[in-house]
Amino acid sequence: MEVKAGELLEQINYPSDLKKLKESDLEQVCQELRQYIIDVVSVNGGHFGASLGVVELTVALHYILNTPYDQLVWDVGHQAYGHKILTGRRSVFHTNRIYKGISGFPKRSESEYDTFGVGHSSTSISAALGMAVASHYKGETDRQHVAVIGDGAMTAGMAFEALNHAGIENSNILVILNDNCMSIDQNVGALKEYLTDITTSKSYNRFKGDVTHVLRKIAELGPDARQLFKKIKKTIKGTLLKNSNFFEALQFRYFGPIDGHDVKHLVKVLKDLRDIPGPKLLHCVTVKGKGFALAEKDQTKWHAPGLFDKITGEIKKPVSDKPQPPKYQDVFGYTLVELAEKNEKIMGITPAMPSGSSMNIMMKAMPKRAFDVGIAEQHAVTFSAGLATQGLIPFCNIYSSFMQRAYDQVIHDVAIQNLHVVFCLDRAGVAGADGATHHGAYDLAYMRCIPNMIVSAPMNEEELRNLMFTAQQENIGPFSIRYPRGQGVMPDWRRPMKAISIGKGRKVCDGEEVAILTIGHIGNEAIKACLELNSEGIYPAHYDLRFVKPLDEELLHEVFSKFKKIITVEDGCLQGGMGSAVVEFMADHTYAAQVIRLGIPDEVIEHGEQPELWAECGYDATSIIETVRKLTVSRATKTLAS
Amino acid sequence: MEVKAGELLEQINYPSDLKKLKESDLEQVCQELRQYIIDVVSVNGGHFGASLGVVELTVALHYILNTPYDQLVWDVGHQAYGHKILTGRRSVFHTNRIYKGISGFPKRSESEYDTFGVGHSSTSISAALGMAVASHYKGETDRQHVAVIGDGAMTAGMAFEALNHAGIENSNILVILNDNCMSIDQNVGALKEYLTDITTSKSYNRFKGDVTHVLRKIAELGPDARQLFKKIKKTIKGTLLKNSNFFEALQFRYFGPIDGHDVKHLVKVLKDLRDIPGPKLLHCVTVKGKGFALAEKDQTKWHAPGLFDKITGEIKKPVSDKPQPPKYQDVFGYTLVELAEKNEKIMGITPAMPSGSSMNIMMKAMPKRAFDVGIAEQHAVTFSAGLATQGLIPFCNIYSSFMQRAYDQVIHDVAIQNLHVVFCLDRAGVAGADGATHHGAYDLAYMRCIPNMIVSAPMNEEELRNLMFTAQQENIGPFSIRYPRGQGVMPDWRRPMKAISIGKGRKVCDGEEVAILTIGHIGNEAIKACLELNSEGIYPAHYDLRFVKPLDEELLHEVFSKFKKIITVEDGCLQGGMGSAVVEFMADHTYAAQVIRLGIPDEVIEHGEQPELWAECGYDATSIIETVRKLTVSRATKTLAS
Repeated sequence: MEVKAGELLEQINYPSDLKKLKESDLEQVCQELRQYIIDVVSVNGGHFGASLGVVELTVALHYILNTPYDQLVWDVGHQAYGHKILTGRRSVFHTNRIYKGISGFPKRSESEYDTFGVGHSSTSISAALGMAVASHYKGETDRQHVAVIGDGAMTAGMAFEALNHAGIENSNILVILNDNCMSIDQNVGALKEYLTDITTSKSYNRFKGDVTHVLRKIAELGPDARQLFKKIKKTIKGTLLKNSNFFEALQFRYFGPIDGHDVKHLVKVLKDLRDIPGPKLLHCVTVKGKGFALAEKDQTKWHAPGLFDKITGEIKKPVSDKPQPPKYQDVFGYTLVELAEKNEKIMGITPAMPSGSSMNIMMKAMPKRAFDVGIAEQHAVTFSAGLATQGLIPFCNIYSSFMQRAYDQVIHDVAIQNLHVVFCLDRAGVAGADGATHHGAYDLAYMRCIPNMIVSAPMNEEELRNLMFTAQQENIGPFSIRYPRGQGVMPDWRRPMKAISIGKGRKVCDGEEVAILTIGHIGNEAIKACLELNSEGIYPAHYDLRFVKPLDEELLHEVFSKFKKIITVEDGCLQGGMGSAVVEFMADHTYAAQVIRLGIPDEVIEHGEQPELWAECGYDATSIIETVRKLTVSRATKTLAS
Repeated sequence: MEVKAGELLEQINYPSDLKKLKESDLEQVCQELRQYIIDVVSVNGGHFGASLGVVELTVALHYILNTPYDQLVWDVGHQAYGHKILTGRRSVFHTNRIYKGISGFPKRSESEYDTFGVGHSSTSISAALGMAVASHYKGETDRQHVAVIGDGAMTAGMAFEALNHAGIENSNILVILNDNCMSIDQNVGALKEYLTDITTSKSYNRFKGDVTHVLRKIAELGPDARQLFKKIKKTIKGTLLKNSNFFEALQFRYFGPIDGHDVKHLVKVLKDLRDIPGPKLLHCVTVKGKGFALAEKDQTKWHAPGLFDKITGEIKKPVSDKPQPPKYQDVFGYTLVELAEKNEKIMGITPAMPSGSSMNIMMKAMPKRAFDVGIAEQHAVTFSAGLATQGLIPFCNIYSSFMQRAYDQVIHDVAIQNLHVVFCLDRAGVAGADGATHHGAYDLAYMRCIPNMIVSAPMNEEELRNLMFTAQQENIGPFSIRYPRGQGVMPDWRRPMKAISIGKGRKVCDGEEVAILTIGHIGNEAIKACLELNSEGIYPAHYDLRFVKPLDEELLHEVFSKFKKIITVEDGCLQGGMGSAVVEFMADHTYAAQVIRLGIPDEVIEHGEQPELWAECGYDATSIIETVRKLTVSRATKTLAS
């Protein structure tokens, strides 16, 4: 469906077109840009609230900055739809997040206006500082470097690390704090409360004014007072006015808070700031979902609502006659509460993903036992380790690709100490439309090399429940359970739980000639493949390993004794993953078999629906079928010949 | 050599003994404890300055707290020697950092007083908060939880993440900021300058006092003034006194700065703080190396000086008649400057390891092109990525085990965007006396699974120089070079550099029956092994892979075509490492050979000298010899029989 841009927006293909307009036109541009985003996202899906919240900021930035010479870095990047539309991508914006279409995030290979690829949060200040230092080194003193970062992203440690460094570099960097009090869920933490405090009371800047005003009045009281005035002014100037603000303590010049939806004022302020050298921070207060009433009201729901009716606001859910399997995340969420009801040692931890991980179910049911610690994966893991030292059993739920942020903490604070922390890695395997930055491709490889770590993945909902049940038993160390984004396969998933022997896989079906070894949900593709192959008279065996570590050696001895043709299938990287563990086993036990490893190849995989990517990477049911056929072709040929 | 403890210290085996003493005895205890540390470290080696700096804090904490019920977490932990001596380990303290001796860091398995194992920095607040939240949950409201963290460690993002969370948890946590302006090198960053500011002017607290005092005086000026007084007091109270301090902005109650060497005052303050609930921070100013004049003067040198004469202060260096090979880190440091002199795109980045990585050589030679960004690995990597987007070529030097802290940034900000950042991973492989937390065991596995990443390791100094030369050429993406702690093998290492074909290994020596494949410095053990074996009439071939990715497929085809017995040797984990890559290759190309993989097993390896650990793990020259002998025993037997 073609979406028509408004009268002014239609003329804007690049920021140079925007710059031709009068300042008085900008409000209309904002209105049209907002409407365009609503029009397209409502029929194509994608992130929603974040981009609506920065429409005015986007327009003002491209109006004032000389992009792409001036460098603009969007943190996380799901708020950059307006930026994409204004920088040459309006005509392809309807392909956003679609297989082979444009990315839902800024991406360097897509446009020179996308200065830094993003997806994960809190990288923008570091990246912009790198750019600013490079410009400084090259003598490009006129160049502007701007990082736009949300208050949620500001809670992550790396943002602080970057501020701490930027404060002492004499480089031209402007951090725009897009303060909307939200991550995907409500933002949390002390900094957020601080920001709310200075915003709601407008206290900080007015305070500076007040103090000066009051001091002047004091001075009018006479010579004694003037003496005091001088003394207090000196004290205040020396310390207070310089360091009284959080960001000024880090040697940033702080400006704001200002209304992030007043485009005229934004233009004026950005123009002024352009001429002020050194590190500076502009605090903009915005509303996530601005301009779409329902999105303003329920910001978490409208973060990425899927398709919706832009008039009624009705969110379109796929309808089905048959009962549908649940999302894995919901199986996690409900099962955790079920387990926690019986085991008072269980605690829940999420770094800013209550709704994404379904930890919100426990947070609602047991608010004292479930914690959202903010966008802070490192802290989430070590905080969990701290809980575990006291005999509690934390379930720390982090998306597979975000767990990369806490890799050292997993090794150093949990595994080396053999602490009982259960890691639930949601969004493992290819993550779908979020693309390259979000694929949970590496966890099997990076977890498998860690001592003491149990590495498991359920093939379906029942298995997830059983693994969670198993993981919360006494006297267990670090335990990781990975599962994919989206739905499982069992509409009737609420089955009684039972313990699984750690390191024991299972035979899904017996067979001959070829054995298929799978790990996790992708095993269901192998089931499909087997059904299809059976109809052709080919009967591969199928084993679900369940654990990549410890490996089920008994099962593998059986496999390598019986089969000379083996296919491993994983929704994860081939280098160092499950298949790699299997060939290590083969080598260690001097078996000789033909092992074909299917999984994510050693490339950056872009976005698309999961089945599209499984097919592209060659490990969906069709690919498995083809691989089995190839391995059995000699037999088939023989059979035909005989 | 037995070291005698002073009169009071001799009576103290546990904190309960310390508590029996009078407050007036504590200064003497401190003096004796300090002397004991000097006496033992001077003859046994180890970290030095950090523990001297917290002697008073250590004594005061154990005097006031009810450890181990009250929980004390030392950040990093190289300052915890005094703590170890006071908590049951005086008699074994001479085994500190020695193979099979006690660890140089707090370690849970060593003592119940070691509440949390450390080694890497900035974990203490997260861990202590976990403990505090657990106590809160269990209703143990009398329990104290104390994290002692340096100003250097405070620059790391995870410390900030923890503060941000702790500020909103109603839990009993005291953070003691041990402010000595140092990491191993001089601490850097905006926060450090802020702390110095409030310390040197003693401004913050005195300011609070001053303002109140001055305001009172104003009030004395009459009713008008009283009116003003109320107004200004309201304004100030509302915002200023609450949020004017960096830590108070994060909802910590801030106390200090106080003199961290005044044990009596510390005791008084800690006693007071015990009764104040909620998150609080005590800012202690200390001197690293306190009480040993030379160590106070050159704090970096005396961070871990090795053995020294405690009277003269002369540091004892091993003497040798022969010219010695350089440390790998120095080859890195000098070579980087050499390259940067010719290639103006090269920049240097270290997160707080100028002297440890020898980046200080470039920082001195080219201060505008080399950056110490503080303890901030995440930022270091993404800052490097930002530089790379501008066509510069950053050499980002991070110890292998610390690189775990920036794993997501390596993937998300560098590799996915295929940016030209050169990662130099120092201390790769077993790290020696620093032990489990510092072994660079996993990097080959965790780097190998990342797309676009080149994974290399030099076998000697010349190779390191050539790899660095290769890595800085045009049109190259992410490039990692790992090398171990300590010396190489080439006294005459300053040889002309030349480019290496990326992904090309080399044959070190031809041979028969058995091929040894090695990666990196450990290849020199294979050379030793071959020499020894040759004398027995056994002639294994030896190949140095140089690259784990891309693999030298031509070389491997040669190896697998010629040899049916292959040994892989790596100073890294067996799971997913180089040997794993080799068996993947074998499986992918359906070769059948006996491959024995030598490397770090799937266990937590403790501390010891590198050769001790290579032997323990079974990949030193002796182990290689034994493995080759086993593989050739049939032939040997045959030869004997014939």
